[in-house]
Amino acid sequence: MTDAFNTLRVELGPRSYPIHIGPRLLGRGELLRSHIGGSQVMVVSNETVAPLYLEPLLRGLQGRRVDSVILPDGEQYKTLQTLEMVFDALMRHRHHRGTTLVALGGGVVGDLAGFAAACYQRGVGFIQAPTTLLAQVDSSVGGKTGVNHPLGKNMIGAFHQPRCVIADIRTLDTLDDRQLRAGLAEVIKYGLIDDPDFFDWLEANIDALLARDAAALAYAIRRSCTDKARIVAADEREAGSRALLNLGHTFGHAIETGVGYGSWLHGEAVATGMVLAAMLSSRMDWLAATECGRVERLLQRAGLPTAPPPELSAAHMLELMAVDKKVGEGGMRLVLLRGIGRALVTTEVEPAALDATLSGRPA
Amino acid sequence: MTDAFNTLRVELGPRSYPIHIGPRLLGRGELLRSHIGGSQVMVVSNETVAPLYLEPLLRGLQGRRVDSVILPDGEQYKTLQTLEMVFDALMRHRHHRGTTLVALGGGVVGDLAGFAAACYQRGVGFIQAPTTLLAQVDSSVGGKTGVNHPLGKNMIGAFHQPRCVIADIRTLDTLDDRQLRAGLAEVIKYGLIDDPDFFDWLEANIDALLARDAAALAYAIRRSCTDKARIVAADEREAGSRALLNLGHTFGHAIETGVGYGSWLHGEAVATGMVLAAMLSSRMDWLAATECGRVERLLQRAGLPTAPPPELSAAHMLELMAVDKKVGEGGMRLVLLRGIGRALVTTEVEPAALDATLSGRPA
Repeated sequence: MTDAFNTLRVELGPRSYPIHIGPRLLGRGELLRSHIGGSQVMVVSNETVAPLYLEPLLRGLQGRRVDSVILPDGEQYKTLQTLEMVFDALMRHRHHRGTTLVALGGGVVGDLAGFAAACYQRGVGFIQAPTTLLAQVDSSVGGKTGVNHPLGKNMIGAFHQPRCVIADIRTLDTLDDRQLRAGLAEVIKYGLIDDPDFFDWLEANIDALLARDAAALAYAIRRSCTDKARIVAADEREAGSRALLNLGHTFGHAIETGVGYGSWLHGEAVATGMVLAAMLSSRMDWLAATECGRVERLLQRAGLPTAPPPELSAAHMLELMAVDKKVGEGGMRLVLLRGIGRALVTTEVEPAALDATLSGRPA
Repeated sequence: MTDAFNTLRVELGPRSYPIHIGPRLLGRGELLRSHIGGSQVMVVSNETVAPLYLEPLLRGLQGRRVDSVILPDGEQYKTLQTLEMVFDALMRHRHHRGTTLVALGGGVVGDLAGFAAACYQRGVGFIQAPTTLLAQVDSSVGGKTGVNHPLGKNMIGAFHQPRCVIADIRTLDTLDDRQLRAGLAEVIKYGLIDDPDFFDWLEANIDALLARDAAALAYAIRRSCTDKARIVAADEREAGSRALLNLGHTFGHAIETGVGYGSWLHGEAVATGMVLAAMLSSRMDWLAATECGRVERLLQRAGLPTAPPPELSAAHMLELMAVDKKVGEGGMRLVLLRGIGRALVTTEVEPAALDATLSGRPA
């Protein structure tokens, strides 16, 4: 008996691709093989994921010349130096322009392997095989790839779409609770951006998700990917509306950089960032206090942090936020909320309100 | 009095751009400024070129916030490590997504700064201000950017078109003879690819070019850029015919990597590579011996090397050539000659003929 699975599509013209979601998909070589043009494959994974899932993946790729490169695990390794390990492996094993990279792991592996694929020989194909909730619902979809700079998150990168995404939801069985919760932050984000019904559903089902109810998780992943695929299809290179996906991220990136990469998980920083965005929106009278409270409460129930670390001063946060990619000629651009499911990109940020929000002064 | 200059265009739809060619263009700020959207500019140059030409460039950019980063000079610095110096400068000076990079220097500076522009915040604008003959006729045009890997030339990079190219031909006054000759190799390449009349002209005018006759140089640069712009416009991402521009390059890259980056100049290696391509073509009875002789003679008259270094064995050359980007599933692809001005891309390379050519055995 073969497990059933769902397939969504990211519609990007010639760069369109499927997202397969279901249990035990890593062992289904046919899904992978149909997106591998040449004879060479380089699997990029990390030392946590590889012992668990490299072997089933390799079984499905029999007949290809498969090499692999195993990276250290953690956001602190999402660097140009680690990227070089991937290039070294590709060169040492003489991979040519027809090779395909497979990113097997979480967001760090996916972003880094995708960027390596964007640059190796000026661009080769790659496949995302995300093994964390965060990667399955967010980072594996949409083609944003890159590495961090010591002074700013994701500052070096490329847009490079994968050929397909294979989200094997059974890999979540081995995910630790902290990682699961971090992924839920991005799931909740989709409800907040433009899917209020999904936010309602999440309020009703957050306990099932935390208890790893398989049906609830599968539904949340599908709906998140559907939401993301729609937003990406409308604005692939983030000329406009795609920036909504950065809800909570300008705050969150400042936290991640400020406390040192790898100390807070990305999803944890985004959770706090979304609460700060809601509080700022509320302080500017854009968001009702009750709705702001719902945002904070759901994230708290998901076991996520909702306040910045005390050692990070408001002034330092502000300084780090000013470095973010969303900052342009017109000053700081933030994603704020007019309601749950009504996010918008704005440059109309009241400096005093932002400062008070970061200082944690009562409204 | 203002100097006259010529403007060509690279026609690439929304990525089209002008190439301005003429004397003293670096001081004409209006040419630069019209392609700089934001308030920030980062000039990338090297320690040889900056003392000569950074100041006139800066004068033309008054009113913008201009920073600069000065790299060490030489092919051996075209690395990911040097690239990081550019990212560090951009981050340290808080350049945002609206910034514009200006590459002031030769091919190494242009390739590296262009790649930095392709990756910084997933892509910012850049301008090529080439100061060597090789960069003016070849590397500044067409959007190929990148760095070397220790095991292969230009293995890490991106396609990223500049907003404009400003070829100030007076900068050639300070170019040493060896660099000038290296640039002539790429000039001669255009005649060989598909412009036999230009090859004839070069045979008649090579001495004037070596004597730095201004009119002859200006003509050679214009015609080379015209030829290159046409080939790039027809096939931006090198799906097919653009590969003709790699005439001599698979051999040449093997020499550059084999002897160590920076030992042979790129143009010197390409010159030898073109002679090897002609000899192989002749050995396969594709090219008349008289035409093969004309190729070798013109490059010799230009003062360029026409034989690989004796310390590089045929076997080692072959091994290095197999790593080149032009190698795909179908094996080695080379650009060979059916005549002067009749280059073609082929996988029909007779192994024995290639081996004999690399060994330097008489035909």
